[in-house]
Amino acid sequence: MLTEALARHRRLAVIAAVVLLTCLYFLLRPAVAHAQTDGETAFVLNTFAFLIWGVLVMWMAAGFTMLEAGAVRTKNASMICLKNIGLYSIAGLAYFFVGYNIMYVDVSPDRLYGLIGSFNLLYGPSGDELALLDGDEGAAAAVIDSGYSVMSDWFFQMVFVATTASIISGALAERVKMWSFFLFILILTALVYPIVGAWTWGGGWLADMGFQDFAGSTIVHSTGGWAALAGIIILGPRLGKFRKDGSVKASPPSNVLLVSLGVFILWLGWFGFNGGSQLALGSAADAVSIGHILVNTNLAAAAGVMAALIVSRPILGRMDLFAGLNGALAGLVSITAGPDITQHLWAVIIGAVGGVICTIGLKLLEKVKLDDVVGAIPAHLFCGVWGTLAVAIAAGGNIGVQAIGVVAIGLFVFIVSIVLWKVIDVVLTVRVPAQVERLGQDTAELGLEAYPEFVLMPEEYDDEDDD
Amino acid sequence: MLTEALARHRRLAVIAAVVLLTCLYFLLRPAVAHAQTDGETAFVLNTFAFLIWGVLVMWMAAGFTMLEAGAVRTKNASMICLKNIGLYSIAGLAYFFVGYNIMYVDVSPDRLYGLIGSFNLLYGPSGDELALLDGDEGAAAAVIDSGYSVMSDWFFQMVFVATTASIISGALAERVKMWSFFLFILILTALVYPIVGAWTWGGGWLADMGFQDFAGSTIVHSTGGWAALAGIIILGPRLGKFRKDGSVKASPPSNVLLVSLGVFILWLGWFGFNGGSQLALGSAADAVSIGHILVNTNLAAAAGVMAALIVSRPILGRMDLFAGLNGALAGLVSITAGPDITQHLWAVIIGAVGGVICTIGLKLLEKVKLDDVVGAIPAHLFCGVWGTLAVAIAAGGNIGVQAIGVVAIGLFVFIVSIVLWKVIDVVLTVRVPAQVERLGQDTAELGLEAYPEFVLMPEEYDDEDDD
Amino acid sequence: MLTEALARHRRLAVIAAVVLLTCLYFLLRPAVAHAQTDGETAFVLNTFAFLIWGVLVMWMAAGFTMLEAGAVRTKNASMICLKNIGLYSIAGLAYFFVGYNIMYVDVSPDRLYGLIGSFNLLYGPSGDELALLDGDEGAAAAVIDSGYSVMSDWFFQMVFVATTASIISGALAERVKMWSFFLFILILTALVYPIVGAWTWGGGWLADMGFQDFAGSTIVHSTGGWAALAGIIILGPRLGKFRKDGSVKASPPSNVLLVSLGVFILWLGWFGFNGGSQLALGSAADAVSIGHILVNTNLAAAAGVMAALIVSRPILGRMDLFAGLNGALAGLVSITAGPDITQHLWAVIIGAVGGVICTIGLKLLEKVKLDDVVGAIPAHLFCGVWGTLAVAIAAGGNIGVQAIGVVAIGLFVFIVSIVLWKVIDVVLTVRVPAQVERLGQDTAELGLEAYPEFVLMPEEYDDEDDD
Repeated sequence: MLTEALARHRRLAVIAAVVLLTCLYFLLRPAVAHAQTDGETAFVLNTFAFLIWGVLVMWMAAGFTMLEAGAVRTKNASMICLKNIGLYSIAGLAYFFVGYNIMYVDVSPDRLYGLIGSFNLLYGPSGDELALLDGDEGAAAAVIDSGYSVMSDWFFQMVFVATTASIISGALAERVKMWSFFLFILILTALVYPIVGAWTWGGGWLADMGFQDFAGSTIVHSTGGWAALAGIIILGPRLGKFRKDGSVKASPPSNVLLVSLGVFILWLGWFGFNGGSQLALGSAADAVSIGHILVNTNLAAAAGVMAALIVSRPILGRMDLFAGLNGALAGLVSITAGPDITQHLWAVIIGAVGGVICTIGLKLLEKVKLDDVVGAIPAHLFCGVWGTLAVAIAAGGNIGVQAIGVVAIGLFVFIVSIVLWKVIDVVLTVRVPAQVERLGQDTAELGLEAYPEFVLMPEEYDDEDDD
Repeated sequence: MLTEALARHRRLAVIAAVVLLTCLYFLLRPAVAHAQTDGETAFVLNTFAFLIWGVLVMWMAAGFTMLEAGAVRTKNASMICLKNIGLYSIAGLAYFFVGYNIMYVDVSPDRLYGLIGSFNLLYGPSGDELALLDGDEGAAAAVIDSGYSVMSDWFFQMVFVATTASIISGALAERVKMWSFFLFILILTALVYPIVGAWTWGGGWLADMGFQDFAGSTIVHSTGGWAALAGIIILGPRLGKFRKDGSVKASPPSNVLLVSLGVFILWLGWFGFNGGSQLALGSAADAVSIGHILVNTNLAAAAGVMAALIVSRPILGRMDLFAGLNGALAGLVSITAGPDITQHLWAVIIGAVGGVICTIGLKLLEKVKLDDVVGAIPAHLFCGVWGTLAVAIAAGGNIGVQAIGVVAIGLFVFIVSIVLWKVIDVVLTVRVPAQVERLGQDTAELGLEAYPEFVLMPEEYDDEDDD
Repeated sequence: MLTEALARHRRLAVIAAVVLLTCLYFLLRPAVAHAQTDGETAFVLNTFAFLIWGVLVMWMAAGFTMLEAGAVRTKNASMICLKNIGLYSIAGLAYFFVGYNIMYVDVSPDRLYGLIGSFNLLYGPSGDELALLDGDEGAAAAVIDSGYSVMSDWFFQMVFVATTASIISGALAERVKMWSFFLFILILTALVYPIVGAWTWGGGWLADMGFQDFAGSTIVHSTGGWAALAGIIILGPRLGKFRKDGSVKASPPSNVLLVSLGVFILWLGWFGFNGGSQLALGSAADAVSIGHILVNTNLAAAAGVMAALIVSRPILGRMDLFAGLNGALAGLVSITAGPDITQHLWAVIIGAVGGVICTIGLKLLEKVKLDDVVGAIPAHLFCGVWGTLAVAIAAGGNIGVQAIGVVAIGLFVFIVSIVLWKVIDVVLTVRVPAQVERLGQDTAELGLEAYPEFVLMPEEYDDEDDD
């Protein structure tokens, strides 16, 4: 009887213990779980963040268009609009058919030295995602485990490659042939940028070394800047820009209001550019980090504006609005390599230094007779380099690795771009004939003036300076 | 003793089994539940999605304004601004007081054949939502069960009716009287569009047949296009547009930069237009679908631009920026009927075909001497029809039902619009006097020139061509 | 044996009861929990809402820039762009280093009568937030309990102070010196606005009295308006604006399209301004409330447009687009004090009355010879006062307390602003020399014309009217 009771007891005790422990588990679990975002919600938030931040970055395409079309002379403004809507379209198609896979699929230091991804020609959603849309529960679990929808990531990455392309059109404005330009953009967005991206964000050899470039001071902005620099070297300056007597012909923006609008658009879009580069919104840590990033982004831009305005008088001889507007972009590019890990005060300093560098750069390019119509190279290339180094200074990190990344990407993009521009020049020619340039691309090539009903000042050319 | 022990045993076994099964339920449940978004979070996400996507769609009102005011001749640009801010305001008020109820309340195939909803005059939040705001727990549960806040849905639907109205103002520009136009818009947004909406999204007879129009290629864009077509038939072409010798007077955009800005705004807003039409964000499936939609939207627009640019040379005689810009809209309208269910490659094809159709359409309208100032009819009507049929081709579905929807909505909107425009013409006259048209509506009607300080080219009129 | 069985029974009964109750707890808990957003998700949503709505409000800076630069005469448009990007930058830095702490840290009716917060010079994230980013679990729990990321709140509040500053630049346009203006903005955004904010949103003495101003009809818009009014009194009207014969020189917008664009931008940004002022998105009640707010915001703006258009003919002598555009802003300012608690029909009424007040105000200012270039004072100050009183009329509340808030904030801001402008005038002078004003600030001060290639009409001055 006793043993029987004991035996029963033991069994009951085991059952009771199991039950109690199980219940205890549930009793304690929710205490933690209550504070945690569940898997599906995190998936939704991550995906939605890619999309909504990506929409803001897409808006930067309009910003570049307004900035550039307002900055060039009126007679080339329609062509700038065409180039910008064209480059955005080409980038979106090229990155879909080719670029994304090269950048993200099968990139690993153990395969081809982490230099490049897959050449699969077409990209689409995973089978799991398609099954999920058909209501497959098992697929749903697999998708949710992946953290975010792949096509939302594609969308976010696509607007980045478009940004890289946008940087170039302004520098080459008023003299580059449209189809030659489009061909360069096609190769840049299908191959060049994705290879740089594979080395870094794709998980290739530079990522493996510990190179830090949160949202792309180097990967996006310097890449665009190097490609632009190669382009203006091959193209040469606009007719009459650098006079034989050593003076420089001023070419102020033809529509300051739209340049200003463009800068505001870019500033706004940059919140998506940097904030979205957190690549997630599914936890409190993500949310806190994005807040930190947006504040740093705004502080750096504001400091860039004020610093550029203040130093523009000694450097450029007058307080210069165009320098101030470029100062905003300079601050934004500068903070882009590390908005997540730099303290706020450092963001102010990094942005202010960026504004000064950009203003000096505007002067410097004129000195070396490089004709960058909108100041893309000072803002995106010089400040991209500065920002990538600054993140190691401000937030710790290996400045040597940062320098290797800057140099490696710079050499690669610059050399490939020089070769590409040269080849295109030989095959198609890259520069419009002198008479087209004098008349303006809008009338000569497009047959569509930007402001056909407005009476414009006749443009003055010093005949001796033209070739 | 044994039976007693057994009885106890049995009771204990039952208790233990219940306990174990219960615990097992909890042990297994969280494995699923962990991955699921809870009801309130889904409610918040659904509601927030309506609002934030709706805000992007509202932005399209600015896009149409810039597109149209930049496309018309300078002397009518202020009037276009007034018409656009006015139509957005009228649409918002009319859809609040009348339209929404006609479209969504009490629509069913079993009541009035699913032709129309309720004529209640005023619409507001449900009692449950008001109680929820007062902290009523029971009301909260009922609201959460409903899936989203009703007024957030109203907001999203309101910006759609405003889009429909926006399509019309551009086509009729430079000659329609403001108050006559506003009266038409009032009736369109209060009655005509809501009736079309009741047939489809409201759950009426076309929905019952299986008509597919995800975000409104037909419901929004063709509806706007048919109303515009009726308008330009009644109004007739601008003075001197079609010359006696059969030639057509060119009327290029007066401000290409703002036309381009307008297109970028519309492109951006379309992400809200199509993405928001998922009508939810509360699950992984919704998030994946929205990602799919945004990618398709962007691919179709990009393909539309490039296709229109390429075919513009053979069709229009030169590579045409305006055709390219309209190509973006063409691609966007074309994909709008099925961005959720078409594969990405199909989106490229649908968009490209849309771009070609639109460019042909621009030429075609000139041939038949219909004067559509901004090309609204090729982009919104022709591509709206194409997109609605294309969804059946690309993603399966009943192309017959699609055609029935296209024809039924087309006939209804076109006939009602012709009658309406005619009645308004008899009562108020719809066209401004010839001297107002020559002078421009800005000076003659508004007394506010768009650019009063700028010197403009004198406009040439061939006297013989005017009546 | 029986007692033994009983004892065992009792123990088992206790165990079974505990187990059952525990299981029952879990069985019932999810029924509630299923409907509730968990803590971390609410934290993420609240933080994300601050950021995304804040981004929309930042966009308002571009809206003010376009509105003002399009409204002034061409010769001062570049300077307006510079002032606006400068003031946004200064506001962002001043509010970071000084303003936020004065407004929100240690504000309490029990300390310094709730008049002002802390003068700590630098503001950054809390230690808990930094620890959270380092993966500290305990810190994470503390952060999540706080409801939202502090820096996301800073971002949202920063764009509000920038809005206040933006209101001023338009009123003073065409004659205020840039650095004097910037100095005023620095003090306004570092001290004046934060003190007003401390009294109210910071939890100071006016909040303690029950003053209701949901998104800042008084706190933001009237504050900006009073500072602008003080400025134009000290500055005086533009040369030749008020003629000796009592007539008023018309100064129509130089670029109506960009004024219209600016108004659309502001309308869009206002959804963030009012919607974000819910300060949360973590519950169904928040979501419902934000939907309610956006609908009211849109209805009030739409009603403001139509009311202003209709009354502009009797009041201003013609149907006036500029009045209509200002009517949108008037409606928006008017609803801003209580978009969450007023019924939709009341929003229509409040907005319409605002549109009428603003149109009358435009006329009134001319009568009293105050030269407000863009109509900032009628739209922001007059309608700000109206909206703050209207919330008590429409939704209940103490109209006396509302009036105390309006008067106290008005007196404080106006007196401090008058003194500040006067001191700045003595030290730096606030007004540009007459020859600069005649030539335009763009050429005379910046050396950068807004549209250098366009031929402009010569401006007419009646010599007798200038001093």
